[in-house]
Amino acid sequence: MTYFDAASSLPLHPVAREALLAAFEDGWADPARPHREGRRARLLLDAARETAAEAVGCRPDELTFTTSGTRALHTGIAGALAGRARVGRRLLVSAVEHSAVLHAAEVHRDAGGTVTEVGVDAGGRVGAGAVAEALGAGGEPAALVCVQSANHEVGTVQPVAEIAAECRAAGVPLLVDAAQSLGWSAVPGDWSLLAGSAHKWGGPSGVGLLVVRKGTRFAPPGPVDERESGRAPGFENIPAIVAAAASLRAVRATADAEAARLRGLVELVRARVPESVPDVAVVGDPVHRLPHVVTFSCLYVDGEALLHGLDRAGFAVSSGSSCTSSTLTPSHVLRAMGVLSEGNVRVSLPPGTEEADVARFLAVLPEVVAGVRGRLDAPPPPAAERTDAADGADGADGADAADGVTVDSLGRLCPIPVIELAKAIGRVPVGGVVTVLADDEAARLDIPAWCAMRGQEYLGEPTRHTYRVRRLA
Amino acid sequence: MTYFDAASSLPLHPVAREALLAAFEDGWADPARPHREGRRARLLLDAARETAAEAVGCRPDELTFTTSGTRALHTGIAGALAGRARVGRRLLVSAVEHSAVLHAAEVHRDAGGTVTEVGVDAGGRVGAGAVAEALGAGGEPAALVCVQSANHEVGTVQPVAEIAAECRAAGVPLLVDAAQSLGWSAVPGDWSLLAGSAHKWGGPSGVGLLVVRKGTRFAPPGPVDERESGRAPGFENIPAIVAAAASLRAVRATADAEAARLRGLVELVRARVPESVPDVAVVGDPVHRLPHVVTFSCLYVDGEALLHGLDRAGFAVSSGSSCTSSTLTPSHVLRAMGVLSEGNVRVSLPPGTEEADVARFLAVLPEVVAGVRGRLDAPPPPAAERTDAADGADGADGADAADGVTVDSLGRLCPIPVIELAKAIGRVPVGGVVTVLADDEAARLDIPAWCAMRGQEYLGEPTRHTYRVRRLA
Repeated sequence: MTYFDAASSLPLHPVAREALLAAFEDGWADPARPHREGRRARLLLDAARETAAEAVGCRPDELTFTTSGTRALHTGIAGALAGRARVGRRLLVSAVEHSAVLHAAEVHRDAGGTVTEVGVDAGGRVGAGAVAEALGAGGEPAALVCVQSANHEVGTVQPVAEIAAECRAAGVPLLVDAAQSLGWSAVPGDWSLLAGSAHKWGGPSGVGLLVVRKGTRFAPPGPVDERESGRAPGFENIPAIVAAAASLRAVRATADAEAARLRGLVELVRARVPESVPDVAVVGDPVHRLPHVVTFSCLYVDGEALLHGLDRAGFAVSSGSSCTSSTLTPSHVLRAMGVLSEGNVRVSLPPGTEEADVARFLAVLPEVVAGVRGRLDAPPPPAAERTDAADGADGADGADAADGVTVDSLGRLCPIPVIELAKAIGRVPVGGVVTVLADDEAARLDIPAWCAMRGQEYLGEPTRHTYRVRRLA
Repeated sequence: MTYFDAASSLPLHPVAREALLAAFEDGWADPARPHREGRRARLLLDAARETAAEAVGCRPDELTFTTSGTRALHTGIAGALAGRARVGRRLLVSAVEHSAVLHAAEVHRDAGGTVTEVGVDAGGRVGAGAVAEALGAGGEPAALVCVQSANHEVGTVQPVAEIAAECRAAGVPLLVDAAQSLGWSAVPGDWSLLAGSAHKWGGPSGVGLLVVRKGTRFAPPGPVDERESGRAPGFENIPAIVAAAASLRAVRATADAEAARLRGLVELVRARVPESVPDVAVVGDPVHRLPHVVTFSCLYVDGEALLHGLDRAGFAVSSGSSCTSSTLTPSHVLRAMGVLSEGNVRVSLPPGTEEADVARFLAVLPEVVAGVRGRLDAPPPPAAERTDAADGADGADGADAADGVTVDSLGRLCPIPVIELAKAIGRVPVGGVVTVLADDEAARLDIPAWCAMRGQEYLGEPTRHTYRVRRLA
């Protein structure tokens, strides 16, 4: 099995494993106790904090270990919002934040706060000045801005230093979700809060970190105790914390060289996939990106079927979007970018990935995609499709007029509505209109994306679940 | 070093260590992912849940793994209170609950809820009918009752099954904090919620468990996600969960035999300490108790100095009360019991403790206590003290009259006020009164406790920080 899902989780780094085993001997006691075992545990905890703080680029007393990256985000957001509740109750988040940020934002909204989403470009990047503009807009004063250092689904790196400067100028703290990037490098810029997650850099699960810079107003939510500066209640998980800090230091030592190497492999995927697989859109910013993540979407493909096909072929990848009954809505990240969501695949390479593994993946992919398309009775690629269209459509259902065709895909899941649209477009003359009835939410994203890919004109959704497309080519 | 602080934390059980190492190979991936690694992680998680549920005596789908016992309590209490917010906002807790419960109660009170404390007897036990009575009292309807299965400081076991019946009769859910007892046995009775902590039974830290019985109204607090039934957000710590479940099963397999053995050692401590150390009060219920915990308080002793002395002698113990500048208030548990708090020592034996270890502890203790008392210039034991008193006091300060003496201990920490009282009592005739001025909060507990131990009459605290004691003997 070749594991290309590093952005979800990584196996334990050998250094983390060693540190963990050692710390199970010396770090199991309560560090709050004055006896020898307690003092020994305390020393390990202090040393781990110093190591992690050095990697993050903060003071040790600004860094708190939490029980997960999610918890670090939840606590960081709630604490920063509470600390500035007198100033204002508006929270700004980028539209492509991790769901943990969005869940915290929902709680804030439910409690009467305001949430403003800052949009991104088609590459998933927050534009220069977008945060400053949102901060400058009227309405309630902002309490906090949340922007990730890099996106978990498409790998796009955000201009955090620039955004931090915009926030400082406006006097509003910036919280950076650094979960995806912290193993590669420190987050640049003058941010106020930062969250990270150890299992993303080869540390054990069960450890996150929350940094709150001195001078940042902060009031931790919920019940607290005397542990971790009152920001993370409950018995400290010292062995895991020790292992997390050790592996962060270890991966950072080789990060630059490994990043350059993986970046080459990712470029290979970015270049080869569109050559070898028809009707593919590579998504995410082409320049500002994580070294190890590449994401693409395949037209006329059910993402989950594709994942299963790749799994059978020996490759573990992930998808930012799942067009199946279990998850009917497309990924909010792809939606915010306005790109194709169907057949979405995220390849995230773990450190040490060999070129041969990537080559095998590239060799297998076209066949797997073709298999899924075959089972869905998807239309052939553009060149062949035009020939078919010239032959005249046969066996089509839903055709009701030569220059206007309606396709009824109500109750059908993505990618069926797009497949039906592709089949129907050849049945109207150039200038004719295809109307697609579809109630799968993904259609709202994928029909316009299909039009852009095919050079057809998307006329909009004049009534809910009714999409109109004019044939241009 | 001999470790007698099992109630704080235990080293990793060998079974847990093995399970953890195995799970690091197979359980590091995201169990929400459909690829092979994700499915393998999911299988391990499911199996661990079944094992833990069997040990607890609940259905697997009632059991959620949290990141600590503290987190299980915080989530359990907030979730149960929110689930019944429409019925009422009154929370009942026993007066000897763990600080995690009291912190959650504080948050509830700060949010406008009501908290009622149910008192305990001198042994630390909630009396039969006490909860029913508190539930029956007028005022706001109760939303939740919290009672621990066994006390963490003195080892007293609560009548949980009886309390659960009282709660069922009143239609109010009972949450049991089973942190101290779950490694020994399942919690009896028809409770509604239960919390536990793996590092108390030899599992790794970073794992707690929260059980919410079917039919219990529950609305988890704060941001949630799709993990752990929406009750514990963040990436599951599967290796640690697997290890926690494995060690729970392992310790349970030998729990009955080990409990009987440790109970014998604890009885030895309970019997021998008062024989070999003067002026000691063994605290906690003599019958209903954990097998491995015994707690005693030593008159005229600074608890922290005693802990350090025992640490130097090679024994790691703990204290429920710390009369030092870092923690000025005596333990809320000992206060609720109304027993002596000074010089408090908790001995909690880990599984496998040998009789020889306990014998060495018993041999060393008298000397260590005498050393601390010597440094504090404590009065000699009763027999000698009476002789001294007959000789007449000399070198005493603060004496102002033959039948009335005032001792000024303002600004002095416990146990100094009690030591000064003991010295002064011989300087008044029988029937005379000693007035002690003391602003250390522990004096409020320890001066009456001293009177009870010495057969003197405690006259109360007519004005704040002024205590009056009549000499009877």
